[in-house]
Amino acid sequence: MSTGQADAPLPPRPLPDPAADDPPGHGPLLSRAEFDGLFDSVRTWGRWTPAGRGAWNRVTPDHVRRAAALVRSGRTVPLGLPWDTRPGPDNGRPALHHMTDLGDVEPAEPATHKDFLAADYHGKAVTHLDALSHVAYRGELYGGTPARDAVGAGGARFGSVADLGALFTRGVLLDLPAALGVHWLEPGHTLHARDLLDAERLLGATLDEGCALLLRTGRFRRRGETGPWDSGTASAGLHPDAVPLLAERGISLLGADGDSDVRPSPVAGVHSPVHALAVAAMGVPLLDNLDLEQLSTACAEAQRYEFALVVAPLMVPGGTGSPVCPVAVL
Amino acid sequence: MSTGQADAPLPPRPLPDPAADDPPGHGPLLSRAEFDGLFDSVRTWGRWTPAGRGAWNRVTPDHVRRAAALVRSGRTVPLGLPWDTRPGPDNGRPALHHMTDLGDVEPAEPATHKDFLAADYHGKAVTHLDALSHVAYRGELYGGTPARDAVGAGGARFGSVADLGALFTRGVLLDLPAALGVHWLEPGHTLHARDLLDAERLLGATLDEGCALLLRTGRFRRRGETGPWDSGTASAGLHPDAVPLLAERGISLLGADGDSDVRPSPVAGVHSPVHALAVAAMGVPLLDNLDLEQLSTACAEAQRYEFALVVAPLMVPGGTGSPVCPVAVL
Amino acid sequence: MSTGQADAPLPPRPLPDPAADDPPGHGPLLSRAEFDGLFDSVRTWGRWTPAGRGAWNRVTPDHVRRAAALVRSGRTVPLGLPWDTRPGPDNGRPALHHMTDLGDVEPAEPATHKDFLAADYHGKAVTHLDALSHVAYRGELYGGTPARDAVGAGGARFGSVADLGALFTRGVLLDLPAALGVHWLEPGHTLHARDLLDAERLLGATLDEGCALLLRTGRFRRRGETGPWDSGTASAGLHPDAVPLLAERGISLLGADGDSDVRPSPVAGVHSPVHALAVAAMGVPLLDNLDLEQLSTACAEAQRYEFALVVAPLMVPGGTGSPVCPVAVL
Amino acid sequence: MSTGQADAPLPPRPLPDPAADDPPGHGPLLSRAEFDGLFDSVRTWGRWTPAGRGAWNRVTPDHVRRAAALVRSGRTVPLGLPWDTRPGPDNGRPALHHMTDLGDVEPAEPATHKDFLAADYHGKAVTHLDALSHVAYRGELYGGTPARDAVGAGGARFGSVADLGALFTRGVLLDLPAALGVHWLEPGHTLHARDLLDAERLLGATLDEGCALLLRTGRFRRRGETGPWDSGTASAGLHPDAVPLLAERGISLLGADGDSDVRPSPVAGVHSPVHALAVAAMGVPLLDNLDLEQLSTACAEAQRYEFALVVAPLMVPGGTGSPVCPVAVL
Repeated sequence: MSTGQADAPLPPRPLPDPAADDPPGHGPLLSRAEFDGLFDSVRTWGRWTPAGRGAWNRVTPDHVRRAAALVRSGRTVPLGLPWDTRPGPDNGRPALHHMTDLGDVEPAEPATHKDFLAADYHGKAVTHLDALSHVAYRGELYGGTPARDAVGAGGARFGSVADLGALFTRGVLLDLPAALGVHWLEPGHTLHARDLLDAERLLGATLDEGCALLLRTGRFRRRGETGPWDSGTASAGLHPDAVPLLAERGISLLGADGDSDVRPSPVAGVHSPVHALAVAAMGVPLLDNLDLEQLSTACAEAQRYEFALVVAPLMVPGGTGSPVCPVAVL
Repeated sequence: MSTGQADAPLPPRPLPDPAADDPPGHGPLLSRAEFDGLFDSVRTWGRWTPAGRGAWNRVTPDHVRRAAALVRSGRTVPLGLPWDTRPGPDNGRPALHHMTDLGDVEPAEPATHKDFLAADYHGKAVTHLDALSHVAYRGELYGGTPARDAVGAGGARFGSVADLGALFTRGVLLDLPAALGVHWLEPGHTLHARDLLDAERLLGATLDEGCALLLRTGRFRRRGETGPWDSGTASAGLHPDAVPLLAERGISLLGADGDSDVRPSPVAGVHSPVHALAVAAMGVPLLDNLDLEQLSTACAEAQRYEFALVVAPLMVPGGTGSPVCPVAVL
Repeated sequence: MSTGQADAPLPPRPLPDPAADDPPGHGPLLSRAEFDGLFDSVRTWGRWTPAGRGAWNRVTPDHVRRAAALVRSGRTVPLGLPWDTRPGPDNGRPALHHMTDLGDVEPAEPATHKDFLAADYHGKAVTHLDALSHVAYRGELYGGTPARDAVGAGGARFGSVADLGALFTRGVLLDLPAALGVHWLEPGHTLHARDLLDAERLLGATLDEGCALLLRTGRFRRRGETGPWDSGTASAGLHPDAVPLLAERGISLLGADGDSDVRPSPVAGVHSPVHALAVAAMGVPLLDNLDLEQLSTACAEAQRYEFALVVAPLMVPGGTGSPVCPVAVL
Repeated sequence: MSTGQADAPLPPRPLPDPAADDPPGHGPLLSRAEFDGLFDSVRTWGRWTPAGRGAWNRVTPDHVRRAAALVRSGRTVPLGLPWDTRPGPDNGRPALHHMTDLGDVEPAEPATHKDFLAADYHGKAVTHLDALSHVAYRGELYGGTPARDAVGAGGARFGSVADLGALFTRGVLLDLPAALGVHWLEPGHTLHARDLLDAERLLGATLDEGCALLLRTGRFRRRGETGPWDSGTASAGLHPDAVPLLAERGISLLGADGDSDVRPSPVAGVHSPVHALAVAAMGVPLLDNLDLEQLSTACAEAQRYEFALVVAPLMVPGGTGSPVCPVAVL
């Protein structure tokens, strides 16, 4: 059994019978050719203008209004991890935080305290958004632009995070541990389309056009209780065969407390197949390393797994993404 | 006349007669004793728990719901400036943006492009939030904590940006150039309470408990047309005598396209009196260097200067603030 | 036995009989009062002008000439470790190395490649020099300046690395593993004055006024063979009772492949007693984390443990030290 | 007249008659074809192993010994500029210096003060060494390696600064202002082979195999007196037609208080022809932005323009150069 057993009360809900399921694993393994077929089948290249905004173009003013209408309790939940300056198995390039003025550098009054922040934020330790320039498959960015032409030492000329702007849309939390009655999914636990469909049903939240899917695997609950591990080699996440469902529903954004990909990868020679499918084929930006613990509690208490979601990356011209603190408003 | 004259059409509205006003200037000059009296008169120390969240405690779930109800057109406007790595008269500590992987560092497939972001973000060039630890007056942070005890090389132990969490509340844009029928306010143009009251009336938006006031001086319109200048020595902004009005209304947040303070300062020996009053006396975080140009247009088109505002700083433990891209949703 | 046994040939030399020695350990333990007495006994405060150059003032032009005269074979040996960007047990704040131009940012011809280097270099991973501002004991820097007055967020106003300039002097390698016929000293191996005297005799090199003592414990030989460990908690190094010998000889500089201090510390409540004595009492800058492996070989081959040594820190105004690549010329 | 006139005493020496010279200028202009011919004529590709050490391979142990023998007065002169964190016309990417521990982060005793240094050091503000990977001409690094294959986001696989190690050799200061009896050469002043020959004769120092040529234009004297300027567009330096002399003499290193190139460039379409010739054709590393003011005084006082020179870059694997503080010992 690859899940942490719930030893504390969980909200009562009909639980699936794990024994009746296939054991969760990394399979089925996909060949590179099968994966390439999948890639082509979910590809939306050429669909939108501006192309660099990808699936965020799905979010119309009407979606925005409907997302605002989801605000009921007024509870505001930030989804960003604390800025972490300590190295660890899941923090190979730790962020920096330096105090640059302690009231003794520039003249008082008032005294001002200042600090410097820095991060090579892609990785497993910083909550961040992946813009479309972050991922190239077979040498091509979303839309077919050759990566080598579009991304250089000066930054990305296509698919920059500054092309995305901000997103305000309906968010859906598929809280897998809550749906399964466990504390977390074990690293390697593989999610297929049927798992997402089950979670939709059990949690009462349905993915629809323009929504942002947030996927909770319980990574940070597990990390808090058992300590950090290298989530780049072992993580719960989506099998690529779940992606066509997301394509069909028309999600605008895919987020997770990990990075959405199951690891080890079930596709030979493709270490991050969901990244390739979402970003490069479908133009769907990713949110990695979300802190979904407080949101899990809030949704359970509200008995509602949908909310208004705001994602406002830093406007970095040529940036491949941005550290970010998304906010859910219930 | 200290304003840029409008040479392009502006939305028709009743214009004040500038000649009838006192000439805008830095006055009246306040003595240090007068300022200290003002400081004490607007002080809210001890009012809230947690103290480090200051005036954000004013924003109740009810305020959040009412903010969400302001979303009508569904237009989403990001308010962050582009990340600027070039030094200039208003960018003395330029931000950094380095590409750290061009698909050639970590193994493909997919190839991933990565970048490093860094900023000593306080100053005049990065859109950022000031947390309560940013400002101390007479050696004390908001609430009276001695700054020397609370802020060290390891960060702030009181008033960290991580104490703030996220804000979702009603935003009000007091678009002074729009109210005055000019393109921008000249550096040094000083705003008093009556200017804010006039703007409220002319723009049809009223400051109320828990709202976020965004003050547009047209800085970036001016900068675009006349080039950058050192806004640390010359900027349009609030006279401290306008602050009691903000205290009376109970704003939760004060933002501007500058840093809210008029410069040169009208208070002898206090270079940033509005910072001292807002942050250290009232517990009101500040948003500095907002890009309000697009929002100005959006509000003019909507003929409405209120909206839902989201501010989601990075969760930096011990941080004195954060680069941020606030979002207005109309 | 706390030493790595030599399983490969070492240069023949009379070996001490380890069994006849007291077992190497961390003792004797010193009380704080005993340590304070030691501190006062080796203190050179007030001796030199400029004070911030400390014991580098010992090096006269005559010492420089004599150091140059030590150059015989013309073999030049750099002593800096490779810049290490990967975290590890002895690299808690890894250095940064980013490529900022790959010939595609600034115009060709020629194409230029550029990079960015950064380090919070104090610690166990970067070869660096400690200037006199690095260490304060009982609140005081070398010479008695209160640290709180002299060092702030803007840097050090006393004892900056820029006060040191460059050093060219006679270097002496006390290669303890070579002297003892072992591959390395085990972490915790404690060196007393008699160990240094023995090494002087066995290696035929005597410490004298103005010389730089480089102490090899074999740390990087051990690290290469057994992997990295947290040398902040366990390292071979000097017992404070060895320091009076160094004071008596009048060394100008103390360097090591560790940081000269034995760890755990034999002084209750003083984690780095040799740092306190050398820097704060004696004004002797330290070189930490030297790569002495190649120099060990060169000295063994030359059968000579003295050479010209050059230390040229970066000229950082207000800096507490500098990454550096010292050079020995034999 | 393009030189700053000497209004203070200079060491007496036979002065050239500037009026008798051709007026210094940027000419003669070279066509691209002429430049390419020059490039081929000075090329030393394939001459040395290891190739990445280029012309530093010229420096034999015998050269080292002879350099040491030049030490007479024992005067040690560091040649590094102060680390400059303020932007300016010649400092477009200012270095960083942050205090990261003020004795309040890690436990005392002793208290330790720590700092963080960072620089995108190529440019006009940091004294630095250019390794062979820094410059590619017509797409090729020294030796013919295609730059695109050899240099990527992970660093340089050929011509890294770590391949250079350290240099100890004879240094020669060609102090042009001293030779010409002026305070500095004006930006744009162009130096030809005959100027170097004249300076050799007037200063009594001859370039020979393996020596390091340091070229003083008086840039920092001028900067101190007239303020900073963009030395990337206007600087005194070498015309490419001076380079064959340097090739003939077999220098190992070329340094200057600027970056050796005269600007504007006299070669159409090649903005840094001397960089291309020295680094890419001849394998000669460059030292840029040396502070030669103190050395100028020292050489004048010693009436000797040769000395031992030490260059010890940081050992950055894959680095294209390094900030450095070279040291002259007279």
